[in-house]
Amino acid sequence: MAGSTFGSLFKITTWGESHGAALGVVVDGCPAGLALCEVDIQTFLDRRKPGATKFATQRKEADSVEILSGIFEGKTTGTPISMLIRNTSQRSADYSEIASYYRPGHADYTFDQKYGFRDYRGGGRSSGRETIGRVAAGAIAAKALAQLGISVTAYTYAIGDITINMEHFDLNEARTNHTGMPDREANEKAAAYLQECMKNLDSAGGVVACSVKNLPAGIGEPVFGKLDANLAKAIMSIGAVKAFEIGDGTAAAKSNGSINNDCFRMKDGAVTKTTNHAGGVLGGISDGSELLLKAYFKPTPSIFQEQETVNQNGENITVQIKGRHDPIIVPRAVVVVEAMTAVTIFDMLLQNMTAQMTHLQHFYKK
Amino acid sequence: MAGSTFGSLFKITTWGESHGAALGVVVDGCPAGLALCEVDIQTFLDRRKPGATKFATQRKEADSVEILSGIFEGKTTGTPISMLIRNTSQRSADYSEIASYYRPGHADYTFDQKYGFRDYRGGGRSSGRETIGRVAAGAIAAKALAQLGISVTAYTYAIGDITINMEHFDLNEARTNHTGMPDREANEKAAAYLQECMKNLDSAGGVVACSVKNLPAGIGEPVFGKLDANLAKAIMSIGAVKAFEIGDGTAAAKSNGSINNDCFRMKDGAVTKTTNHAGGVLGGISDGSELLLKAYFKPTPSIFQEQETVNQNGENITVQIKGRHDPIIVPRAVVVVEAMTAVTIFDMLLQNMTAQMTHLQHFYKK
Amino acid sequence: MAGSTFGSLFKITTWGESHGAALGVVVDGCPAGLALCEVDIQTFLDRRKPGATKFATQRKEADSVEILSGIFEGKTTGTPISMLIRNTSQRSADYSEIASYYRPGHADYTFDQKYGFRDYRGGGRSSGRETIGRVAAGAIAAKALAQLGISVTAYTYAIGDITINMEHFDLNEARTNHTGMPDREANEKAAAYLQECMKNLDSAGGVVACSVKNLPAGIGEPVFGKLDANLAKAIMSIGAVKAFEIGDGTAAAKSNGSINNDCFRMKDGAVTKTTNHAGGVLGGISDGSELLLKAYFKPTPSIFQEQETVNQNGENITVQIKGRHDPIIVPRAVVVVEAMTAVTIFDMLLQNMTAQMTHLQHFYKK
Amino acid sequence: MAGSTFGSLFKITTWGESHGAALGVVVDGCPAGLALCEVDIQTFLDRRKPGATKFATQRKEADSVEILSGIFEGKTTGTPISMLIRNTSQRSADYSEIASYYRPGHADYTFDQKYGFRDYRGGGRSSGRETIGRVAAGAIAAKALAQLGISVTAYTYAIGDITINMEHFDLNEARTNHTGMPDREANEKAAAYLQECMKNLDSAGGVVACSVKNLPAGIGEPVFGKLDANLAKAIMSIGAVKAFEIGDGTAAAKSNGSINNDCFRMKDGAVTKTTNHAGGVLGGISDGSELLLKAYFKPTPSIFQEQETVNQNGENITVQIKGRHDPIIVPRAVVVVEAMTAVTIFDMLLQNMTAQMTHLQHFYKK
Repeated sequence: MAGSTFGSLFKITTWGESHGAALGVVVDGCPAGLALCEVDIQTFLDRRKPGATKFATQRKEADSVEILSGIFEGKTTGTPISMLIRNTSQRSADYSEIASYYRPGHADYTFDQKYGFRDYRGGGRSSGRETIGRVAAGAIAAKALAQLGISVTAYTYAIGDITINMEHFDLNEARTNHTGMPDREANEKAAAYLQECMKNLDSAGGVVACSVKNLPAGIGEPVFGKLDANLAKAIMSIGAVKAFEIGDGTAAAKSNGSINNDCFRMKDGAVTKTTNHAGGVLGGISDGSELLLKAYFKPTPSIFQEQETVNQNGENITVQIKGRHDPIIVPRAVVVVEAMTAVTIFDMLLQNMTAQMTHLQHFYKK
Repeated sequence: MAGSTFGSLFKITTWGESHGAALGVVVDGCPAGLALCEVDIQTFLDRRKPGATKFATQRKEADSVEILSGIFEGKTTGTPISMLIRNTSQRSADYSEIASYYRPGHADYTFDQKYGFRDYRGGGRSSGRETIGRVAAGAIAAKALAQLGISVTAYTYAIGDITINMEHFDLNEARTNHTGMPDREANEKAAAYLQECMKNLDSAGGVVACSVKNLPAGIGEPVFGKLDANLAKAIMSIGAVKAFEIGDGTAAAKSNGSINNDCFRMKDGAVTKTTNHAGGVLGGISDGSELLLKAYFKPTPSIFQEQETVNQNGENITVQIKGRHDPIIVPRAVVVVEAMTAVTIFDMLLQNMTAQMTHLQHFYKK
Repeated sequence: MAGSTFGSLFKITTWGESHGAALGVVVDGCPAGLALCEVDIQTFLDRRKPGATKFATQRKEADSVEILSGIFEGKTTGTPISMLIRNTSQRSADYSEIASYYRPGHADYTFDQKYGFRDYRGGGRSSGRETIGRVAAGAIAAKALAQLGISVTAYTYAIGDITINMEHFDLNEARTNHTGMPDREANEKAAAYLQECMKNLDSAGGVVACSVKNLPAGIGEPVFGKLDANLAKAIMSIGAVKAFEIGDGTAAAKSNGSINNDCFRMKDGAVTKTTNHAGGVLGGISDGSELLLKAYFKPTPSIFQEQETVNQNGENITVQIKGRHDPIIVPRAVVVVEAMTAVTIFDMLLQNMTAQMTHLQHFYKK
Repeated sequence: MAGSTFGSLFKITTWGESHGAALGVVVDGCPAGLALCEVDIQTFLDRRKPGATKFATQRKEADSVEILSGIFEGKTTGTPISMLIRNTSQRSADYSEIASYYRPGHADYTFDQKYGFRDYRGGGRSSGRETIGRVAAGAIAAKALAQLGISVTAYTYAIGDITINMEHFDLNEARTNHTGMPDREANEKAAAYLQECMKNLDSAGGVVACSVKNLPAGIGEPVFGKLDANLAKAIMSIGAVKAFEIGDGTAAAKSNGSINNDCFRMKDGAVTKTTNHAGGVLGGISDGSELLLKAYFKPTPSIFQEQETVNQNGENITVQIKGRHDPIIVPRAVVVVEAMTAVTIFDMLLQNMTAQMTHLQHFYKK
């Protein structure tokens, strides 16, 4: 069944494989009149480009976007925006060997079980390159949100055991170092840890955090369309994510109501909360405070150590994976988390516009 | 916008408020020919009934289900199954006071922001009673799964700081004690902790785990329709859930690839994994091993301590919530997690049936 | 698969069988703040009630609606509105005979082929009683549209060969006579024709027209979400409808561009069209003029003449249908067409609210 | 809102404008293992290519398809199939004039009303070139259906007043002449009529019929997912279609039950119908006989006669449209109707596979 479409009103459909001709996305339902050009998209894509950090595969891909539709005279027209990114650095030969066996931690086995065979070149559709379409779409959502004064910012929160100190928070640091951590000290520790992992032919996991600021209260739909439920799906759909949290997340389960409840107080004539354990969502609807989520990534499954597995003939074998692989997924995943958050938030902002009859009466009175 | 429908092929639509006339669910897309009667549903509903444990509100509700459609001669007909549960113990007077202010940790404020006003009686649609429809639908999904040999089992994994010891696992214990913990020792500690919380007019959080056994490999759709992404949405859509994990979850982020990768090995002629850090899902598709997820619940927001908040006139006030409230959500939420897992899994089993042309050729060759 | 849900933002899910316990509908996504009570719904339901005209089955059904959720203090809350109509006049014994064979023109055979068996009592889910849920939902949509100044009006346009004369148009006539024709003369001819059909143990078909007035320009989404495409689905999903037209419909295929094109002209400072061959839709989007559609109904398949058919043992047999049946579907279907048109139009009005970035900037600037 | 996606399990998303860089479609949910290459698609595209008949615009477009994803070693992989067709013959200068006014019968005015502005080059998204994506997707559906023994065949049924004689039916004639009529005599009359229209600087309408053979009984979902309801939406979503019929269509409304009912009879051990007034659908579900539908197209709105209209300054003006335009839409629309029918039918064949528990038990017992 079709699983490559996400969203209701702002709807994205991604396509493409690691070593196919190209990857891309169709963004349908973007409101008309948003100024948009290829630079807006490229800026986002460059943040996930291989080779951008020393902890990423040294494979070089230009990942240049071409916008094929939906823009006229520099603005979105309201019709689908199709974006294309050609693959240019396909060395499929690297992968011919893995055609015959199942890499541990990868989707080789499950794709075979589902479809009867698979595009084994670089993981095909299950490759991390699949996220290119998400990032291109996220660039549009983020630009639209910015016009409404809403900002979405993701960064590396932890790598292995090393967690950032929020008191050192420096976004500029995150955007220029190799780990994506907004804390110079943590970055240095994490870099050392990753060097160690690489020396051991091993890989590491980590955590990406994402913050949404200036989100109005009232966004999200009760029951199944909760803002955090949709964000959970958006984030858990990113390859290698194994857990999702909103606000205090897992820690809330050890807390007590007297602590975990955020009290309301008036401030400058507005309703505010004195704390934000909830992470900006109450009953699945935004409460006007900062929205905070975390995505937990497993270590890159492609490691250079010898591993046990089975081949397609049903024989136990020992393998050693070759090719070009990131020792950690997290730094390049930061922009993917940001993109998926932006896409989800923007879609739900659109959904919220029909919540009250007075909205309709105002809109259609003209 | 419509947020009360979940699922693609097995689609559920819930409705109803805490203190309205009734609650219910319409289950559409259930395959024809499943033997089904009200007892199948009631058994599930009784597990979430208030008054079932001493750590639940002492409000008495019969929560008797009536099946109104979709069954003929004891079997599902393939058409929508409508189920109705009347509210019988509405003491709305308890709630008249809260009409005027926003309870901390509840959705009062966010509903007002979204809709302009709210049904304040018992939280209306944001009440935990909303889950009745989910549980009734889950009973159907679970029965259908059982006919395919697939079992879905949820239990309390932790309460506050007390976590079960998997070596003591005893499901019968979980189904008969007051905490839902499948470990007698942990149950006793947790019970003592909850008594302490109640004495302090406070509430506690906890964790529900859910295991799916005998799930075939191949279930789940790549990219946005990943099995774990849909489960994340299903579980995070349950009120008070603040985090979702699959397999090792958050712990995977601190692991290394050499440990976290599950190796494949042949066993009795079948492909198996030697470990299950992944929790049964690779690339968003089931791998044939046990599926394991966890839902983290915040403490019940309704506590009897004095709290600070604001009222609808924008004044800072101090409130003390009255009424009948659970000191912990978790024990009654166990069956809700089980239900949502069953609904999601069954829907995705249906979706998977069209994955290969050979399936179609086989199906339509008759 | 689930086929009982219609709409995107204003989403309706109907359920129930002819001779089950009840029928109903869940309306999700209705904006909050619409004044609504059971009388609003009952007024619509009474227009389709059996026994309302002499050309309808004399089966007596109260068809009283009960609203179970989604209303608080007389207004919609934004959460699902569940409505229930109990069946009270089930004489299933009438139908025991048809369990064994396939009635010509009915869905008995196709349901058996699809589901392996069927609820044969009165056609089960394929009965015309299924439309009760549509009408209840349509009553809500129509009331909401009325608040925006938009009216939806259906009437009988033709019965057999007898077509109304638009110059005699009198809606009051349509609402009080037995045919639903807004033309006294046509009504008389049609009544005589129907008496003749009944005498011959035969049935007749006819045409329902529906007009939407004061619909703003801009409603409808390009390509697959065209306003007329969604209306076509809405109307063709009503049992017994065999053709759908918008504007001049089939006649347009015989016309020429020079005649069929509606010219634009300024009138009182507004863009208007000098003719309306298009029926109010250009490129799938409303153009601000009257929207006009027609639904063509086949004759009631239940006739009292002897007919040839086969039974479930695969034997050729001759049957004579008993029970209570309408000699024509059209008069009772008028309100069903009106309801489905209202539901579709209202859903698309909601969809249109996010078409431009300036709409969002205006909405969220607060 | 997003309107460029169609289908549930076999889901297509089209994009592109008449004079943009390219047009295309993403086909998601195609079962894995279907042999597919660009020739399969090109064959379909060539049937709608401008310049293919003398009654089509003489604009030359190669309309060459490039498949960018979803195929590996000559077979579909189950992941999205992205297809791209570059625009090569854009003479936007032809259109600069129409930027300022609203062409009668076109969507210029309605797009402006909806989006605030429009891509005026060749109609942008509302151009007939939009159907390229539909045809490319339809080629895949048709190939998959062929593997199940199901054929979909469309042809021109009428042009103006000239209707084909089914007794002369010759598909080869339709595929090689300029009108698409499968009747040599009718073709000649229609060709003469069209020459007359062109001489008068006018345009003509017509009817496309489509037949589906060997469709199994049981396809279609009750109530809103009726096979004919989904076909109606599919066909009415094609630009310029003003009416849709299934089986006898509008004629059924003038018939009587005793004639319109198709009797069942056993034939060679199988249930058959002695007539097919229903057009292969009973209660929205296929009955195993030939499925027959008709699409009524209005005359091409672009005519070379002088017409009255208004401009964007709100002034009444007289215009004479230039450029390259088909005097009739129908011959090139034949393959579009065939494509949309194939896409709809194939989607619903997939949906039907989960109708019975026994199907699941059979599928998952392995």
